[in-house]
Amino acid sequence: MDTNNGTTHILLIDCRDETGLVYKITGVLYRHNLNIVRNNEFVNPETKHFFMRTEFSGEFARTAVIGDLIKELPEDVRISLGGKKKKKIVLLATKEHHCLGDLLLRNEFDRINAEILAVISNHELLRSLTERFGIPYHFVPHEGLSREGHEEIMLEVIDGYKPEFLVLAKYMRILTPEFVRRFPNRIINIHHSFLPAFIGANPYKQAYTRGVKIIGATAHFVNTSLDEGPIIHQSIIPVDHTHSVNDMMQAGKDVEKTVLARALNLVFDERVFVDGNKTVIFD
Amino acid sequence: MDTNNGTTHILLIDCRDETGLVYKITGVLYRHNLNIVRNNEFVNPETKHFFMRTEFSGEFARTAVIGDLIKELPEDVRISLGGKKKKKIVLLATKEHHCLGDLLLRNEFDRINAEILAVISNHELLRSLTERFGIPYHFVPHEGLSREGHEEIMLEVIDGYKPEFLVLAKYMRILTPEFVRRFPNRIINIHHSFLPAFIGANPYKQAYTRGVKIIGATAHFVNTSLDEGPIIHQSIIPVDHTHSVNDMMQAGKDVEKTVLARALNLVFDERVFVDGNKTVIFD
Amino acid sequence: MDTNNGTTHILLIDCRDETGLVYKITGVLYRHNLNIVRNNEFVNPETKHFFMRTEFSGEFARTAVIGDLIKELPEDVRISLGGKKKKKIVLLATKEHHCLGDLLLRNEFDRINAEILAVISNHELLRSLTERFGIPYHFVPHEGLSREGHEEIMLEVIDGYKPEFLVLAKYMRILTPEFVRRFPNRIINIHHSFLPAFIGANPYKQAYTRGVKIIGATAHFVNTSLDEGPIIHQSIIPVDHTHSVNDMMQAGKDVEKTVLARALNLVFDERVFVDGNKTVIFD
Amino acid sequence: MDTNNGTTHILLIDCRDETGLVYKITGVLYRHNLNIVRNNEFVNPETKHFFMRTEFSGEFARTAVIGDLIKELPEDVRISLGGKKKKKIVLLATKEHHCLGDLLLRNEFDRINAEILAVISNHELLRSLTERFGIPYHFVPHEGLSREGHEEIMLEVIDGYKPEFLVLAKYMRILTPEFVRRFPNRIINIHHSFLPAFIGANPYKQAYTRGVKIIGATAHFVNTSLDEGPIIHQSIIPVDHTHSVNDMMQAGKDVEKTVLARALNLVFDERVFVDGNKTVIFD
Repeated sequence: MDTNNGTTHILLIDCRDETGLVYKITGVLYRHNLNIVRNNEFVNPETKHFFMRTEFSGEFARTAVIGDLIKELPEDVRISLGGKKKKKIVLLATKEHHCLGDLLLRNEFDRINAEILAVISNHELLRSLTERFGIPYHFVPHEGLSREGHEEIMLEVIDGYKPEFLVLAKYMRILTPEFVRRFPNRIINIHHSFLPAFIGANPYKQAYTRGVKIIGATAHFVNTSLDEGPIIHQSIIPVDHTHSVNDMMQAGKDVEKTVLARALNLVFDERVFVDGNKTVIFD
Repeated sequence: MDTNNGTTHILLIDCRDETGLVYKITGVLYRHNLNIVRNNEFVNPETKHFFMRTEFSGEFARTAVIGDLIKELPEDVRISLGGKKKKKIVLLATKEHHCLGDLLLRNEFDRINAEILAVISNHELLRSLTERFGIPYHFVPHEGLSREGHEEIMLEVIDGYKPEFLVLAKYMRILTPEFVRRFPNRIINIHHSFLPAFIGANPYKQAYTRGVKIIGATAHFVNTSLDEGPIIHQSIIPVDHTHSVNDMMQAGKDVEKTVLARALNLVFDERVFVDGNKTVIFD
Repeated sequence: MDTNNGTTHILLIDCRDETGLVYKITGVLYRHNLNIVRNNEFVNPETKHFFMRTEFSGEFARTAVIGDLIKELPEDVRISLGGKKKKKIVLLATKEHHCLGDLLLRNEFDRINAEILAVISNHELLRSLTERFGIPYHFVPHEGLSREGHEEIMLEVIDGYKPEFLVLAKYMRILTPEFVRRFPNRIINIHHSFLPAFIGANPYKQAYTRGVKIIGATAHFVNTSLDEGPIIHQSIIPVDHTHSVNDMMQAGKDVEKTVLARALNLVFDERVFVDGNKTVIFD
Repeated sequence: MDTNNGTTHILLIDCRDETGLVYKITGVLYRHNLNIVRNNEFVNPETKHFFMRTEFSGEFARTAVIGDLIKELPEDVRISLGGKKKKKIVLLATKEHHCLGDLLLRNEFDRINAEILAVISNHELLRSLTERFGIPYHFVPHEGLSREGHEEIMLEVIDGYKPEFLVLAKYMRILTPEFVRRFPNRIINIHHSFLPAFIGANPYKQAYTRGVKIIGATAHFVNTSLDEGPIIHQSIIPVDHTHSVNDMMQAGKDVEKTVLARALNLVFDERVFVDGNKTVIFD
């Protein structure tokens, strides 16, 4: 958790591992007279890839710090020194209100480190809810369109906003690989099951039929394989024999919105690295 | 969980225990040609008090069924045969939006078995949020008033709505015993700690100082002793050394709203009996 | 939970639903002067099958009560009026000690409503642990034997004990359908994943590869389809990117033993009905 | 979680914060040609105290590394470079077996980073259990002795073993401040409630009377104020109106043993700093 006092900055670095990386990185910060208040570092033991998140205080010249870091670090290094500014996001939704409503409330009351620029939906149902929070609502119907044709229209809308992240807040259509490739590791989805259980359609129906005693939800980055992207967060709630499919769906909504909000907080607070098909999370 | 298919009815009975109560009660239902689809019964082993919740299907004459039940049962019996109709409620709030916003969303989308008639607050802060959901907002400031004087004005507003329940959605003032006695077992509060830990003011500050690894929230009926009423539901989330007091408060908001919503669902779905200073819950 | 005061008895009944079942059953108890202290009843809304668990106090003639019940109830009725006596069980294990050790401790200190008659294993590794608790240990190696041949020898050992239940306490071999059919709904297994995720071999390896943030365990009745029997209990623990496959396995052991012990308590306290491929549990 | 591959070492450092500490520490490691595989650092924002845990690989001369670190760091620095060797511990118990049995099993099967040297109890009850695991059992009765007199005899036994930690595995007597001061931050207790709720005697009776819906357990370092030492780990389980005091006690045993084992793993894996009356935990 951040102290959120507005005076710290966040440095994210990942590259192939080699001896002395922490020393070299913290040396740059030291020479710029910056004080580390929290630091997390992890090397993936299989891939020997290095991940580090550093929170520090002090004033600095961004370009000079990054320049000095690049000089010291391996060629494949990726550096993010973005501070704690709000991420610009666009939400995609279909008909269900629970994740959207929760995010609109958090956005309004500054309870998520993001600014919702717009909501896009293939239905009109959520317009009233969205607009009463002063957020533009774009109805992009899919009827009579190919998947590509529908996405093309959505892309026009999205491009108008230049969002840093797309959030699928119960957007119930499958995105094409071409669409997904436009936003690498920048689309976050909430899946209504404890993945990889119940991949695909109607997970609650599947869960009911199997007679599970727990249902869950999974927030993940979207990649080109359906329901297979890097998992950010998961949580569960107990159910029992008295739950109908509909009861499970309703119970699931609460865990879905909680899991999505938690995942977004982790990503927007710069705590999440994508590591192949997994995530490294420093929380 | 209910199947919520609209075709079942709920019978709640509590009285002193004696042999044959389930037989007598189900006999009345049988003679009225009603079919029990779910039944829960519990006798408090200390007080020998009997509690039963029955969900049944079929058509019936309400007065006749209750009349027949009264004939068969002990004199102290309390019977509720209210069906699944929405409870009429009034919310009291102060400045925090998270529980109020969550309940406004659930109310709008029919995700709680209640109808919010109005919101009363001692601040103006939540008016815009409330009114955009079409709910009347009453600002009843407490400045310059005695506690009794302030409550008197609130009572006038409340009496205009005749609510079945008052929900304290982060209402941060203490109610007088006189006020509470007007609504016996009909005021539900969300307390921002895992009661009975951290009774009273600033529970998150207390939790931070103690260095706990878990924080919680407690929904309870309000009685005349502060923070001592019958507990309906509790839940927790983990915290760690990186959480400031403010971080704990923010993390706590999510569990507060979840716990309150769950408690309200239990009460409004007729699953909760008050048993002295405790609750008997058939979920 | 039971009060476990030794003075109550448990009646389990299931049959096709019809109007008046609770009335008829409780009428029999009433006429035998028995007092119900807890009652749970559920009708599966899809199959219209009726399940009821009744805990009552008083003295009674077992045969007379059952006889009277049979007269009143549908032909397909199954009645269990077994009281709370300890179930006789045989454990099957392979090499892992954690579930076995936990059950041996619970058995010794009377913390499970069962009596462990013997342990059978296809390895010698757990003999010392088992025998120091005074429980017979049977080493039945599988090397050089067909699956059927190995099971035949195990069956000879098992038949010598006439157990009511077999508990697979991390028994790592697949049982043949023929073996399973000998013990219908009487074999309980602990599976080291949150079923139906990660069916089959090496679930922790699968979980690691998928990058899940939660791992789980599932206790279920064994039927003739691998990992597909009725689920009794499930639970989970969080994991993160720092967990290797081995870390997940070790972390999983604690949830495995907890889930198995909980499931056995539910079954042995007569709280579990099998309902097709699901369970109805009154806890 | 550790990968536990035996090839990494652990460096713990805490001191007052100043700019450049991570740089200076990692510089020493770099010049000794050591490779950091995991690093966690935290500065308490209130006390400005610095905590760092570093896991690294490579061969090194212990004295030289520590000497170089001391040269670079503030005077109040505390350094631990102990590796992952097993901690030597003595257990204190009274009559309850569940935590003791669980630890004896973990000890035997190498599932805890410790070696149990002996068990001391003020009762004879647990001798058989302890001795069948080959661990010495010392019966030190308290009858007829002052608290100080009893502790004096225990101290003689303890001193014979020179343990690094004392673990109170349901030791039900209060230790004197004089005894506690002998083992600063080296006594770990499991308290049978979710502290600070239900401090003192009979927490389950208190929990039952209050009608809570959750009970918990707390593992903490023992200091000279009863139940007030730094909390290491806490967890909870749900209960309901059907739980008698005894049911709560039995249900609590499972969470007690799980919480104690988890806390011991954290401490023995060198993940826990004491920070005043709190803990900083890097897990």
